[in-house]
Amino acid sequence: MSSEFKLHPQLAKDCFRIASLPLSELLLCNDANYPWFILVPRVAEISEVFQLDWQQQIQFLNESSMLSELLMQEFSGDKLNVAALGNVVPQLHIHHIVRFEDDKCWPKPIWGQFDALPYSVKEKQALIERIAVRVNAILSK
Amino acid sequence: MSSEFKLHPQLAKDCFRIASLPLSELLLCNDANYPWFILVPRVAEISEVFQLDWQQQIQFLNESSMLSELLMQEFSGDKLNVAALGNVVPQLHIHHIVRFEDDKCWPKPIWGQFDALPYSVKEKQALIERIAVRVNAILSK
Repeated sequence: MSSEFKLHPQLAKDCFRIASLPLSELLLCNDANYPWFILVPRVAEISEVFQLDWQQQIQFLNESSMLSELLMQEFSGDKLNVAALGNVVPQLHIHHIVRFEDDKCWPKPIWGQFDALPYSVKEKQALIERIAVRVNAILSK
Repeated sequence: MSSEFKLHPQLAKDCFRIASLPLSELLLCNDANYPWFILVPRVAEISEVFQLDWQQQIQFLNESSMLSELLMQEFSGDKLNVAALGNVVPQLHIHHIVRFEDDKCWPKPIWGQFDALPYSVKEKQALIERIAVRVNAILSK
């Protein structure tokens, strides 16, 4: 893990921080259209999962699968969309989006479809707290 | 690995088989707009990466990162898009798409943007051979 890591300003602007996992920052995307979370490994100057060293890749997989299972339990989603795109923000970040057959974008991928619907302060705080409690319970095991 | 695995008919229709990796089928998507490859773990009745058992998840990561690095070397791409979506085809399959800053969809994600541009028989055979040779060289090490 690099000491030079700094969250990309676009991610800092579009997201709220929920928790620091052993490798990654866990963010909530400020778009209430979908439960949309992002993992950002704290490793400077990489854009692809395969550019993590192997130990970091295993840890990323661990964090991604833990988060995926937790989100599908928590929101009773119909499908999870997990994606490392990065065409606009090159810093490695991996989307985890809970999808529902009645969400406004189904079955299309969500990117570029609708304007973000910002959370109210109250909604945001409740959701961050709800996920942080679950994540911290798992991490403290 | 389940003996009941059968490639989803939509994937069989839209893709060509390149190789069988230890866990996954490696497919070429029949869309010449982008170098677009898909990994399909041969595990029946799952839709999410976290539903693979842990050993399979590690093997999937291994295959995905090997493929990712190979594709970025082979095509000198600007970015790789790696995504497990599955909103339309629920069988777990993971897209690996090489993106270029001058491809017709950049910087948008490719799904739902343009009609597929089918390969000619000659193009298809050449591309399958080109990737199969690289993959088999790595697998035989």
